[in-house]
Amino acid sequence: MRTGVWLVGGRGSVAAATVAGTAGVRAGALPATGLVSELPAFRDVPLPALDDLVFGGHDPATEGLVKRVERLAADGVVPHGLPALVRTDLEAADAEIRPGLTGTGRTAGTADAAVDALAADIADFRRRTGAADVVVINVASTEPPARPHPAHASWELLGAALHRPDDAGVLPPSSLYACAALRAGCPFVDFTPSTGARLPALDELARRQGLAYAGSDGKTGETLVKSVLAPMFALRALSVRSWSGTNLLGGGDGAALADPRRAAAKIRSKDRLLREQLGGPVQGGVHIHEVPDLGEWKTAWDHIGFEGFLGARMTLQFVWQGCDSALAAPLVLDLARFMALAHRSGVGGPVPELGFFFKDPVASAEHDLNRQFDQLVTWARGLSGAHR
Amino acid sequence: MRTGVWLVGGRGSVAAATVAGTAGVRAGALPATGLVSELPAFRDVPLPALDDLVFGGHDPATEGLVKRVERLAADGVVPHGLPALVRTDLEAADAEIRPGLTGTGRTAGTADAAVDALAADIADFRRRTGAADVVVINVASTEPPARPHPAHASWELLGAALHRPDDAGVLPPSSLYACAALRAGCPFVDFTPSTGARLPALDELARRQGLAYAGSDGKTGETLVKSVLAPMFALRALSVRSWSGTNLLGGGDGAALADPRRAAAKIRSKDRLLREQLGGPVQGGVHIHEVPDLGEWKTAWDHIGFEGFLGARMTLQFVWQGCDSALAAPLVLDLARFMALAHRSGVGGPVPELGFFFKDPVASAEHDLNRQFDQLVTWARGLSGAHR
Amino acid sequence: MRTGVWLVGGRGSVAAATVAGTAGVRAGALPATGLVSELPAFRDVPLPALDDLVFGGHDPATEGLVKRVERLAADGVVPHGLPALVRTDLEAADAEIRPGLTGTGRTAGTADAAVDALAADIADFRRRTGAADVVVINVASTEPPARPHPAHASWELLGAALHRPDDAGVLPPSSLYACAALRAGCPFVDFTPSTGARLPALDELARRQGLAYAGSDGKTGETLVKSVLAPMFALRALSVRSWSGTNLLGGGDGAALADPRRAAAKIRSKDRLLREQLGGPVQGGVHIHEVPDLGEWKTAWDHIGFEGFLGARMTLQFVWQGCDSALAAPLVLDLARFMALAHRSGVGGPVPELGFFFKDPVASAEHDLNRQFDQLVTWARGLSGAHR
Amino acid sequence: MRTGVWLVGGRGSVAAATVAGTAGVRAGALPATGLVSELPAFRDVPLPALDDLVFGGHDPATEGLVKRVERLAADGVVPHGLPALVRTDLEAADAEIRPGLTGTGRTAGTADAAVDALAADIADFRRRTGAADVVVINVASTEPPARPHPAHASWELLGAALHRPDDAGVLPPSSLYACAALRAGCPFVDFTPSTGARLPALDELARRQGLAYAGSDGKTGETLVKSVLAPMFALRALSVRSWSGTNLLGGGDGAALADPRRAAAKIRSKDRLLREQLGGPVQGGVHIHEVPDLGEWKTAWDHIGFEGFLGARMTLQFVWQGCDSALAAPLVLDLARFMALAHRSGVGGPVPELGFFFKDPVASAEHDLNRQFDQLVTWARGLSGAHR
Repeated sequence: MRTGVWLVGGRGSVAAATVAGTAGVRAGALPATGLVSELPAFRDVPLPALDDLVFGGHDPATEGLVKRVERLAADGVVPHGLPALVRTDLEAADAEIRPGLTGTGRTAGTADAAVDALAADIADFRRRTGAADVVVINVASTEPPARPHPAHASWELLGAALHRPDDAGVLPPSSLYACAALRAGCPFVDFTPSTGARLPALDELARRQGLAYAGSDGKTGETLVKSVLAPMFALRALSVRSWSGTNLLGGGDGAALADPRRAAAKIRSKDRLLREQLGGPVQGGVHIHEVPDLGEWKTAWDHIGFEGFLGARMTLQFVWQGCDSALAAPLVLDLARFMALAHRSGVGGPVPELGFFFKDPVASAEHDLNRQFDQLVTWARGLSGAHR
Repeated sequence: MRTGVWLVGGRGSVAAATVAGTAGVRAGALPATGLVSELPAFRDVPLPALDDLVFGGHDPATEGLVKRVERLAADGVVPHGLPALVRTDLEAADAEIRPGLTGTGRTAGTADAAVDALAADIADFRRRTGAADVVVINVASTEPPARPHPAHASWELLGAALHRPDDAGVLPPSSLYACAALRAGCPFVDFTPSTGARLPALDELARRQGLAYAGSDGKTGETLVKSVLAPMFALRALSVRSWSGTNLLGGGDGAALADPRRAAAKIRSKDRLLREQLGGPVQGGVHIHEVPDLGEWKTAWDHIGFEGFLGARMTLQFVWQGCDSALAAPLVLDLARFMALAHRSGVGGPVPELGFFFKDPVASAEHDLNRQFDQLVTWARGLSGAHR
Repeated sequence: MRTGVWLVGGRGSVAAATVAGTAGVRAGALPATGLVSELPAFRDVPLPALDDLVFGGHDPATEGLVKRVERLAADGVVPHGLPALVRTDLEAADAEIRPGLTGTGRTAGTADAAVDALAADIADFRRRTGAADVVVINVASTEPPARPHPAHASWELLGAALHRPDDAGVLPPSSLYACAALRAGCPFVDFTPSTGARLPALDELARRQGLAYAGSDGKTGETLVKSVLAPMFALRALSVRSWSGTNLLGGGDGAALADPRRAAAKIRSKDRLLREQLGGPVQGGVHIHEVPDLGEWKTAWDHIGFEGFLGARMTLQFVWQGCDSALAAPLVLDLARFMALAHRSGVGGPVPELGFFFKDPVASAEHDLNRQFDQLVTWARGLSGAHR
Repeated sequence: MRTGVWLVGGRGSVAAATVAGTAGVRAGALPATGLVSELPAFRDVPLPALDDLVFGGHDPATEGLVKRVERLAADGVVPHGLPALVRTDLEAADAEIRPGLTGTGRTAGTADAAVDALAADIADFRRRTGAADVVVINVASTEPPARPHPAHASWELLGAALHRPDDAGVLPPSSLYACAALRAGCPFVDFTPSTGARLPALDELARRQGLAYAGSDGKTGETLVKSVLAPMFALRALSVRSWSGTNLLGGGDGAALADPRRAAAKIRSKDRLLREQLGGPVQGGVHIHEVPDLGEWKTAWDHIGFEGFLGARMTLQFVWQGCDSALAAPLVLDLARFMALAHRSGVGGPVPELGFFFKDPVASAEHDLNRQFDQLVTWARGLSGAHR
């Protein structure tokens, strides 16, 4: 049974790594390292097989996936032989990419017409590929925080606003995509800190239609480490006095986040964990600096000042040097598989049990990685029962 | 109801920080930071109050606790006003310290006579202070790995060997202390990687007498961080390729561990976690280097090389700058309180549920800090029920 | 022969460390560690003796030096016994502190009247203490970059503007102090990145009066390290691709630099070195973040990406954990001594040979620490000859 | 005018990077990054052109240079297209490699016969290629420290011992190669910490024959950084209390240095700088740990504890992540060019002016990188005059 994976940002690094990696694993050229859904804990969970995934997506970029993956190889992200080896798969996925919204996200007509056109692209993909279900995942660049609009408050208001030419900008692009996914009858995942489905109006729509949505902002690197270190301090009753994080980003991500409005969205998402894990605000904050020369790679330095017994002041520092696309791609596959399962099991509305994958989990205040994993396992096994 | 805490190594840094810190918290001059037993999770567990603890111990050193705490203040470990503030408490504890075994651990007569003398010291302390129970905790310097001896295999063989003048060296000092604790009817805790109670013969004795023992090697710093990072990699299906740890130690600890035989014991204890958490040996290893100038402070650098999806190679490095005595002292208090509860609840033999506190937990292969904490909470709450 | 040291910001951390340290060294309680002027290279240079220095200054703060030094002791910057030991010296210096300009730097009357009042304070100090010379050194908080004003272009224009009530704000506070120093016949040193004497009009005045001035921005920590690492890459023909610096500051410095306008001055000063040493702009930049909990301490992390032969990409990272007041104080003493020598030797105008001490050296584009040191030695030895 | 470069260890990583890099620069495919001899300071120095270098060497390994460079490409050291691009050059150099001594360094007959055979290989190479001069450079693995032998004391004694079958082991392999170079009339460079020409007997021989020799142990990474940081502390009168270095090495270097006897030679070489720069022994030391997974890459962490004014304790840490072959190769080329110049200029005996390139410079106690560079420039320019 085929499962479609529709990637918003289908020609970006994350999408390219996702498609190339899947093909490489299928071909036996790469191990399934980094795929949570392949862990023994999920052995009996009836997730779609990697072999059954088909890819498509929206992206206004014109550089094809083959070229993109060749650039990843030049940057040392994917092995050098891979682009040639998986060329057919890349071309197949590339043929399923539609432009979607333009770079500005501005639509010519009403927002509703834009949503309709996007939803039609997804529905066509499902029909053409024969996929039983399609999971829509947003892996596009982070967008600035959405401007509040009264119509966000309910589906009734939003549904009306979508038809008003004056309200063409009522939704940011990520939410237009989320809305299109729901209209096409597909579950939706926000792998970015963008608004996506996180508006009361879209939450209402998702619940009404019995469609699942999950997010936000894939927990790939620095925040992943924080999600195990913060509980460590708490379990040992050590008092964290300051936590300062600095992220050096290259590539597209760095450029996008050099825009302070976009960075604001990202930082808000990254800050949430500490605030909620340590029971209040902590001095320091998260800082993002662009260093284009780093390319696909990212370096984060965190400095944590804490106090122990007797008032002794101590520090923990860590440096994370990772490749975001290689870290994100397996999680995108995991999410596609778990969301397909959820969809088949009739799950609708927000899915807090997928918080394991996110910096800023919807409908959940749990950030402890271990507890999140336990929730994921329990949930997925529970669905398996339901599913059978 | 008074609870005695008998510290083997009663005039060392850890003991000094333990006694001074308890007095400082009692006096309201210090918060209870770092005390796990004060976390909300244990609110309803009937642990002995800090106010009810009385201290004594064995130590051949002649420099008193007042002096020792003044040196900790000069090193920036305890606040400057503290030594004067808690002088009475330090003097009281100091008056309860007996020399015990000499530095070499060699005894004049038989091992049995040595154990008797040590046990008498503990029993006298209990009588004099009116303590309902006494928990014996080894916080002395790490000793070299014990030479194997056939009499270690059972209490029958060991009991006989203890009486033979030729077998005066059958037990290393830490095991003589463990044996003395059991003979005096007290539970025993090994806060060091020394042998202590971890011999089949002593395990047998403890079970027979219904006395609890716990250990080994307090998880205070670098290994604490490892115990949350190693599971993180596992939960994300990331493949750890190498994990190299370097520890720079000053103070007494550094000097003791400059002896390669003693370092061997420590390193074995520190290595165990990774081996068991990551499912096999990992390149790298743990290295300990002495830097006397660091005094009470310790710096550890860990370099972790891992592989993600697509074979991408990434690294995580951390630097931990901590004060071992300030990190160890609250755990010593926690262990005294939990062991007193166990003792009152009739627990005998090894206590795997205290693995949360140790690098090398007895009777347990669980190293994941979160799961260890859950076990601790469940166990302590269960005992509370039993206790009432 | 007494030498006066007049500190603008006379009750701040740097001033307190300077006065307390001098007294501690005099009393034999502290070694002269960190004093460049005590190196063998300057053995035969007739610098004023530490014993002959007398301190005074301007500061609107009312908390006295004794209190300030006690706080430094509590923060672990100065030894605990020191405040009591040097109390008399601290009180003597404190008695010589005048309020000077208020916190806002706004003056009631004309700028000229303000300069007159400040100059009178300095002249009184010289008279009262019998100092042969007084060196004025600005160690106050960094001020925002000065607003340009046409009168900055020449002393003729500035002299006129100073008398115009409408132009009361023609000079920023640091320049009012510089002007007052010159009016009182004293050499002036800018230990901060503030404007100070660096205006064509004040440069002209200094040259005319034959008074030396030096600056700017003491090279105490991160930039010190950069001033030896940048030449290293250049000497090895390695290509630096990016250099990202993050500074976590506590204390007063952190709070002052949390103001983005003040931070701008600091960052400009810190950036200059790399730009001039590496022959062009480099990706990355310097970032300053406030972490009040760090107190007097500062942590800087620099990440340097470079390329070697064969295009191989490599990195160097460093973490500097220092105490700015303890690093700055000996340089303030060095500068007082070298400037007194310059003054006695008739040096006027900018002193590029003191560039060794500064991030942003006046009248010099040399940033290589070794070459700067050679220049300093040659210059000081030359003056010694002139002086005799 | 052709210049021969004869590499002992001609099929190792350093040799492969040297030959491939030279070919890449010649072909215009790579910039001359990392080549000191290409700096403007040497513009008028008549060094042999890169185009005029021809390569050969000794190596018992059978894996050819093409294969080796392909492995470097797979490890991300050289660009992926390079092996194919420079294949002809690699094959040409490979054809000039002779086995030389076997892996054990044991010779069948007398040491003299072995030296003769090695010298003949070099002379044949010179003849065949028409090179005016040949510089012999040892880039083989580090060997254990040589066993002392009375014949090392003078050439008279050594010359005799070389002929005695019983004394076949009088010289370690590196010294047999050095001796062969001299016998073939070639200058010799030790890029490793091995003994090479550093025996009184060989020094005497080199002086007698008017042949230059230089060494030892290329200053490529961690020690390079130390050679600028140690002077920085000295120039600022800061007191270094401890300096601990940890090196994680993969590849062949790591395996060779896992042998504690070989590591001893390396560590001695690395330790010298600090001892001589800081004016005495410093706590800490250098440690080398093998981590095969790092491949050609190396990570070093240095922790430096220092004291400033007022006794304030501070730290500097750095992490160097470099590729030793890419760092060593350009220095090998620089040394070949400078030694060819020296040879043509009639320089004989040790060349202290090349200390810039070495951890353990012959006939020099200068370790300050800046002063070493000045010496190099002065020397090379002086030779240029002599040369014309």
